Amino acid sequence: MKLHDCKMAPNPRRARIFLAEKGINVEKVEHSILAGETCGAAYLKINSWGTVPALELDDGTVIREAPAIFRYIEAEHPSPNLLGTNPKEAAEIESWERFAELQGMGAIGEFFRNQTEALAGRGLPGPSKLDLIPALVERGKTRAAWFYSQLDDQLGKTEYLGSKQYSVADITAQCAVDFGNAVSLGIPDNCKNVKRWHKAVSARASASA
Amino acid sequence: MKLHDCKMAPNPRRARIFLAEKGINVEKVEHSILAGETCGAAYLKINSWGTVPALELDDGTVIREAPAIFRYIEAEHPSPNLLGTNPKEAAEIESWERFAELQGMGAIGEFFRNQTEALAGRGLPGPSKLDLIPALVERGKTRAAWFYSQLDDQLGKTEYLGSKQYSVADITAQCAVDFGNAVSLGIPDNCKNVKRWHKAVSARASASA
Repeated sequence: MKLHDCKMAPNPRRARIFLAEKGINVEKVEHSILAGETCGAAYLKINSWGTVPALELDDGTVIREAPAIFRYIEAEHPSPNLLGTNPKEAAEIESWERFAELQGMGAIGEFFRNQTEALAGRGLPGPSKLDLIPALVERGKTRAAWFYSQLDDQLGKTEYLGSKQYSVADITAQCAVDFGNAVSLGIPDNCKNVKRWHKAVSARASASA
Repeated sequence: MKLHDCKMAPNPRRARIFLAEKGINVEKVEHSILAGETCGAAYLKINSWGTVPALELDDGTVIREAPAIFRYIEAEHPSPNLLGTNPKEAAEIESWERFAELQGMGAIGEFFRNQTEALAGRGLPGPSKLDLIPALVERGKTRAAWFYSQLDDQLGKTEYLGSKQYSVADITAQCAVDFGNAVSLGIPDNCKNVKRWHKAVSARASASA
């Protein structure tokens, strides 16, 4: 089993932290997004969507997209549980994991990508040629503020994001927040609950994955 | 159990078809997106994200986002299986379901939304005030063409999208394609495999949901 990865990118980090929490070591194959490797012919043969992470199994099966990797690994290695222990909890975790990705990473991603010259002509991950759109920088900033406010409300009610237990919702939110920190869209000062939670998840051994 | 719904929107239709395939009848509560009801104070008390679908359980729990609803219903009503019968199949279904949503509905959605005057100031689903961005109309069109080409390649290899069996990946792709049909981004003429598959899924009783 090997993980197609890009060390500096927030999205494959979700898979790396998930695997670290499970105590699973896998070979990591680095593909530079900034150098265009994930959109190159060699990588498109592995994953025609041009995205990382992708998990390649020993039989050659390639599992694409972080949530599909979570699902596969959780089924094969159930402990520790990261996707929920009963149907209601699993649904709550899934909705917050998705919120963290689409509203958190999505917002910070469009803020970052659309002002990054090295990504000119690559307005979204993947092989399509898409112009950067400067108006998305401001939109991403507005959306990130809303993301943080929703996160803060929730973390005022629960210790972890999707459940009483640490889960994959925390992993994706952690990757989103650290991405925000790296591109000047870090946790707003008034989001005390997010700060408390971020300190806790950052203290876990998996945070360095 | 009741489904917070909007009859004309493609996203809640994913949940309606899923429930229909399971043979589950639930009360449906209509909230007009175009009239702004999903962003109004009354609905934000039910779902602060301002999105449909949301499934309200008899104990008051609200499950937000279609994939979380799928997960909950599949756990409580396992038959017929729509999320995969083994870990590899489940992962493949998840990645295609996600592709259909993010690359299919996402592309067609940005094409439609950013040219729709009735949605001025609502550049994305949810309560944030976001300007429409005309450049996203063209981007959505380019992305939709890529979505269809990927779908066609896959459906040249398999009868259904994520598996040999009909699954939730087909449901979301069907909702994306029918949304495309409704807004002049229908199946390109050369996508014969998509046309064959679309005819099959449209013949199912659940298609009217």
